Amino acid sequence: MFKTGELIRGLGVNAKNFKKLSTLSLTDVQFCDGVKKITMVDQKSRNSLSLGMMQNLLDNINRDMDNKDLRVIIITAQGPIFSAGHNLKELTPEAGKGQHEKVFQLATQLMCSIIECPVPVVAQVDGLAAAAGCQLVAQCDIAICTENSKFSTPGSNFGIFCSTPGIPLARKGLKATILHMLLTGLPITASEAKASGLVSKVCAPENLESEVKTTTSAIISRADL
Amino acid sequence: MFKTGELIRGLGVNAKNFKKLSTLSLTDVQFCDGVKKITMVDQKSRNSLSLGMMQNLLDNINRDMDNKDLRVIIITAQGPIFSAGHNLKELTPEAGKGQHEKVFQLATQLMCSIIECPVPVVAQVDGLAAAAGCQLVAQCDIAICTENSKFSTPGSNFGIFCSTPGIPLARKGLKATILHMLLTGLPITASEAKASGLVSKVCAPENLESEVKTTTSAIISRADL
Amino acid sequence: MFKTGELIRGLGVNAKNFKKLSTLSLTDVQFCDGVKKITMVDQKSRNSLSLGMMQNLLDNINRDMDNKDLRVIIITAQGPIFSAGHNLKELTPEAGKGQHEKVFQLATQLMCSIIECPVPVVAQVDGLAAAAGCQLVAQCDIAICTENSKFSTPGSNFGIFCSTPGIPLARKGLKATILHMLLTGLPITASEAKASGLVSKVCAPENLESEVKTTTSAIISRADL
Repeated sequence: MFKTGELIRGLGVNAKNFKKLSTLSLTDVQFCDGVKKITMVDQKSRNSLSLGMMQNLLDNINRDMDNKDLRVIIITAQGPIFSAGHNLKELTPEAGKGQHEKVFQLATQLMCSIIECPVPVVAQVDGLAAAAGCQLVAQCDIAICTENSKFSTPGSNFGIFCSTPGIPLARKGLKATILHMLLTGLPITASEAKASGLVSKVCAPENLESEVKTTTSAIISRADL
Repeated sequence: MFKTGELIRGLGVNAKNFKKLSTLSLTDVQFCDGVKKITMVDQKSRNSLSLGMMQNLLDNINRDMDNKDLRVIIITAQGPIFSAGHNLKELTPEAGKGQHEKVFQLATQLMCSIIECPVPVVAQVDGLAAAAGCQLVAQCDIAICTENSKFSTPGSNFGIFCSTPGIPLARKGLKATILHMLLTGLPITASEAKASGLVSKVCAPENLESEVKTTTSAIISRADL
Repeated sequence: MFKTGELIRGLGVNAKNFKKLSTLSLTDVQFCDGVKKITMVDQKSRNSLSLGMMQNLLDNINRDMDNKDLRVIIITAQGPIFSAGHNLKELTPEAGKGQHEKVFQLATQLMCSIIECPVPVVAQVDGLAAAAGCQLVAQCDIAICTENSKFSTPGSNFGIFCSTPGIPLARKGLKATILHMLLTGLPITASEAKASGLVSKVCAPENLESEVKTTTSAIISRADL
């Protein structure tokens, strides 16, 4: 099995060029100059937070915790959907209570790994972040999104109130907007997401990379704390 | 005495048309298709939250708690004043400490009934919401107002600092704006109310009904949770 | 020694004209018609919160606590820098751990004096408020700034994460913006400061005095609570 962690640890302090460290089907991971960028590439499932994707993200976040070269983590996605949330195929009645518990326990571990991460975690969003995908954005320390992005917690549509997404959303954002999202399932725009505190910055799609770069470079340029 | 509750309970699951359920002088209550709309109609007192009005609102919110047809409550008002707050005639020194306590106990009960209400409560505001009237808006889960609306906590003008309104305001909104309101008594505009988290949506007056309808329809269309 | 406090106490209820009460080198203090205005005038140090400046502010805030004439305090500054934060000359390794502790203990006392102050404290800002200077603004009950103002927590630049500024910032503002400030050290504009809840009002530079006057007059005109 391809061990991303070992390769990363082997990069050393002065690695100056991006190296592709993972070509697993679910994510693409690059680590260069202090920045670890985790890109969800499971477009066919709309980057759903399946058990496989959550374990993959968790492993990639938790790796390198002791690597002094690691200064910031970016979580981003390929395609027009940042993440559609849990994979509902894993939450059918047939899947059984045991699997439901497994899904939500792993989701909790994933979210807590961001809280406990010793370096800043930045969400880079260009598209729809829904349900647990929206939770993932809210859980990050910093979120930068394009004007095209949308955010929603439509769990209620399926009889599954977005209770766990509600937690970081309510901690981070203005309740008047967050409750509207949670109770109606209706999406908010990028500018509403900024106004209500769900994201840190909004920019034009063509500026997303540079805006994120400005942020991560500022973090990295600081004296090592 | 006209018993709104009994009539409402008699409507049954498939009631499809609005029926006027109450023509009491203080509120007008309609219940149709899952939506209970409570309209304050006491324009001559500027929809003040008198003991009578608070008891009326409390009764109308608490009714139907076990009615599965109830999916959302709207609190709104007739006329240019959503609500001017407590009826100061009931808070004169002559009224006595006993009555003051009664007023604030009933206000607490009213606000708590919104917190404990098992369905979302939406404030639909077109005009001034002042003091306890502003508190009522802040206490609702969702608030949708017109661009003409204003919000203030002018208790300080009368030597009665808006301490109880301050609680849901401070829980819901950005403190820099909320403290400015509480300490100066100066009103804020609808757009400031949106920016500071006091309301969920602002719209043109001609769109208020449709904006509220979009919200309540979204709530109702969801799978029963 | 020039005792500002005694002079102030002697002003009486009906003092109608501003009187300059202090011409100390670090601040200029005026007390008139219920308003005590403390202006930092140490432009050569960029109004740094040196031990001297912090003690001066603390003394000037704490004075008059029992003076019924005191209704509101304004903290403002001369020059293009509201305050650059701690005086880093006092935080060098050579200064020693003892002095570092003294600096942060005095800073805590200063911030707590604003929390405990029985009258509203208003920050009037026209320029840069950085690090502990930004903390001072966030700690005030109300903050009014010009469009030119900027706010930053650049401690990370110097290997000193702005941990104490982070406390009132995180209590007051939207976390998505505040964390971006704290982790990157990058400044935010006045309008971002308003949107994220760091300040109460933003105005054109030529309107700053009148905007602050509107606020303080509203506070003072209220019935004595």
